Amino acid sequence: MSAKKWITFLTDYGLENKFIGSCRGVIAKIVPDSQVLDITHLVPRGDIRHGALVLEQAILYLPEGVHLAIVDPGVGTSRRALAVAVEGHVFVGPDNGLLPPAIDRLGTVTVVHELTEPSFMLQPLSNTFHGRDVFSPFAAHIAAGTELADLGPEVDPATLVRFPVPVRRVHGDKAEGEVLIVDRFGNLQTSVDEGILRAIGAIIGSVLEISSNGSIYRIPYVNTFASVPEGELLAHVDSAGALAIAVNLGDAAEVLGIGAADLFTVRLAG
Amino acid sequence: MSAKKWITFLTDYGLENKFIGSCRGVIAKIVPDSQVLDITHLVPRGDIRHGALVLEQAILYLPEGVHLAIVDPGVGTSRRALAVAVEGHVFVGPDNGLLPPAIDRLGTVTVVHELTEPSFMLQPLSNTFHGRDVFSPFAAHIAAGTELADLGPEVDPATLVRFPVPVRRVHGDKAEGEVLIVDRFGNLQTSVDEGILRAIGAIIGSVLEISSNGSIYRIPYVNTFASVPEGELLAHVDSAGALAIAVNLGDAAEVLGIGAADLFTVRLAG
Amino acid sequence: MSAKKWITFLTDYGLENKFIGSCRGVIAKIVPDSQVLDITHLVPRGDIRHGALVLEQAILYLPEGVHLAIVDPGVGTSRRALAVAVEGHVFVGPDNGLLPPAIDRLGTVTVVHELTEPSFMLQPLSNTFHGRDVFSPFAAHIAAGTELADLGPEVDPATLVRFPVPVRRVHGDKAEGEVLIVDRFGNLQTSVDEGILRAIGAIIGSVLEISSNGSIYRIPYVNTFASVPEGELLAHVDSAGALAIAVNLGDAAEVLGIGAADLFTVRLAG
Repeated sequence: MSAKKWITFLTDYGLENKFIGSCRGVIAKIVPDSQVLDITHLVPRGDIRHGALVLEQAILYLPEGVHLAIVDPGVGTSRRALAVAVEGHVFVGPDNGLLPPAIDRLGTVTVVHELTEPSFMLQPLSNTFHGRDVFSPFAAHIAAGTELADLGPEVDPATLVRFPVPVRRVHGDKAEGEVLIVDRFGNLQTSVDEGILRAIGAIIGSVLEISSNGSIYRIPYVNTFASVPEGELLAHVDSAGALAIAVNLGDAAEVLGIGAADLFTVRLAG
Repeated sequence: MSAKKWITFLTDYGLENKFIGSCRGVIAKIVPDSQVLDITHLVPRGDIRHGALVLEQAILYLPEGVHLAIVDPGVGTSRRALAVAVEGHVFVGPDNGLLPPAIDRLGTVTVVHELTEPSFMLQPLSNTFHGRDVFSPFAAHIAAGTELADLGPEVDPATLVRFPVPVRRVHGDKAEGEVLIVDRFGNLQTSVDEGILRAIGAIIGSVLEISSNGSIYRIPYVNTFASVPEGELLAHVDSAGALAIAVNLGDAAEVLGIGAADLFTVRLAG
Repeated sequence: MSAKKWITFLTDYGLENKFIGSCRGVIAKIVPDSQVLDITHLVPRGDIRHGALVLEQAILYLPEGVHLAIVDPGVGTSRRALAVAVEGHVFVGPDNGLLPPAIDRLGTVTVVHELTEPSFMLQPLSNTFHGRDVFSPFAAHIAAGTELADLGPEVDPATLVRFPVPVRRVHGDKAEGEVLIVDRFGNLQTSVDEGILRAIGAIIGSVLEISSNGSIYRIPYVNTFASVPEGELLAHVDSAGALAIAVNLGDAAEVLGIGAADLFTVRLAG
């Protein structure tokens, strides 16, 4: 943990109600010298994969500290609440697939503990707001220096709930991929990385043929948005190092009619 | 006031303009070692009752400090601007009903002062942005240690503007309540608390009959969202200790066609 | 630079993705004792003029420090990235018109440097996310005390890209102006200032005749929203010192059918 006690914070709680303020307050009372760094609180409701991807893509840029992440449609069920230590970072969140992609980016898990010690939970404990009553106080106590071993029983890292790895494969001159996420701008981020693009022979200036849902699009592979006129499709390697499909100052998801979890193939246009 | 100078902050200013940044700047200049804790800035425009409820539900989780709350459709009129001290906390905001529900959760008012001392206001003083020119600088000076007596004349706490108490009563085997708020997810939070549910004989597993606007719904009373299938109605005691009506991963306000301030009755289904 | 290292932050990145959290993380790692003060991250996508106006209207209320502003539709092109020093403040952002209006409010530019020194950029450097890879680390290093001369070559302040000055002129008893911005509430902020209103003889209580797009409206010139009934048009001098047109608890842009960059004339109603 660095001298400054960072707690990064990602949820699907939205910003228009008491949720985030209450969590921040709980943290402030327990560890006033911590600093909360908000990643986002606008993960689409209950969309664990979306939350996992945002956390994964931000994690290498975040300071060492506690990473509090809550997208928890199973709140109040028997899903486990966990603290996962890896390389000087500690992740706090539900055991539902949200945390592992970010954890894997940092390295190998040191130790995992379940968050069960009642003395760290707020009382009365609500059934529906474990962000306030469980995750925030545990995260704050960890930032304050509590040992993970005091939080609850140790858990085998191999038992963490994980999502299947996204589709990402090469067949000869064609690659198959999956749309991972659609951002605010309608940009499609995909599972196809720069290495796969090289493997099918794509270089800056190539035209890519992208097929999805029975439609075929020819899209220039360029460096940046402004490489094509306003309103035109472009393919580029985005800031996460993956193939992204966008419309310059427009909405690619709308133009293409495809979205998260849709499959596609890509090859050089003939 | 704790060693750290907390200023919690709730408004209906929205996040897309200069409003919040300007207020934060005013505070930062006056009391650089304060820490602003945002509750929300997305209270529906001018909806004092909504703002009051969010503040009330967050207050017990917030650190001691100054609570700056601005939902102020009467800005520029003769409505008073106040600082209200209660149990080590000081609330700063307009005298329009916004503050009392939160204040009452903390205890008895110690002292109230009107915010009239011109030397604490920004000049030129705008007619429409008292958040920046009046409330923020007063809140900052209070956080910096200025005595409330220096801010303006003392005010009788009995004269604070208050909203009527929400409808909440039991008639035999039936209770009458009011929808207080609809959250981002379409969940309905009501004025009926857990004690009233016990009084009409509801226990986890009961089916509740809820009538509103001429329609009757039979809704299972459960512990948490995941207790019913996706898309189904459920009733539960929410994180504020009150009866809430929700649809698992859906929008109850839309399904039921009812919203804030609507009345309803609830009893055990026969 | 003040003792506290303030970095104010304005972008069009939105709040629902990794963008802002990643930038905050980059800053936190480089200069952990800085304090980020968010102005807004909801500038309409690519709308440089909108971002410039928000920054301009907030700047006089912000603490001394680094002002990081990113609305950058030309990311990845040859547009310059700059640090501009003025009166103890340093602005960091793209050279596309975003910064000068705020800079001009503070005074005369001391020195400008281009941000070209590769050792301050993150590697690998993305083509599309210079907020994370270029602007944030440069801003953080400046806040940490790096001299501007170490960032890249000096730039002639006269070469900064600037927008044309908005239309604002008086012809006899009539003034011509331009809608600068439409805020969240549908309020129209204009280029006409209080001096111009005085020049055409308007005083509080006057009725203004405002013509735009072939329509003519008679609108009372008042002090505040609550001076007219709910749903009625009003004209007032807003918190930026400019003529604003609003509907009390309503949406003036919708009622009038006019928006940003539309021209209008205003005179006293006969």
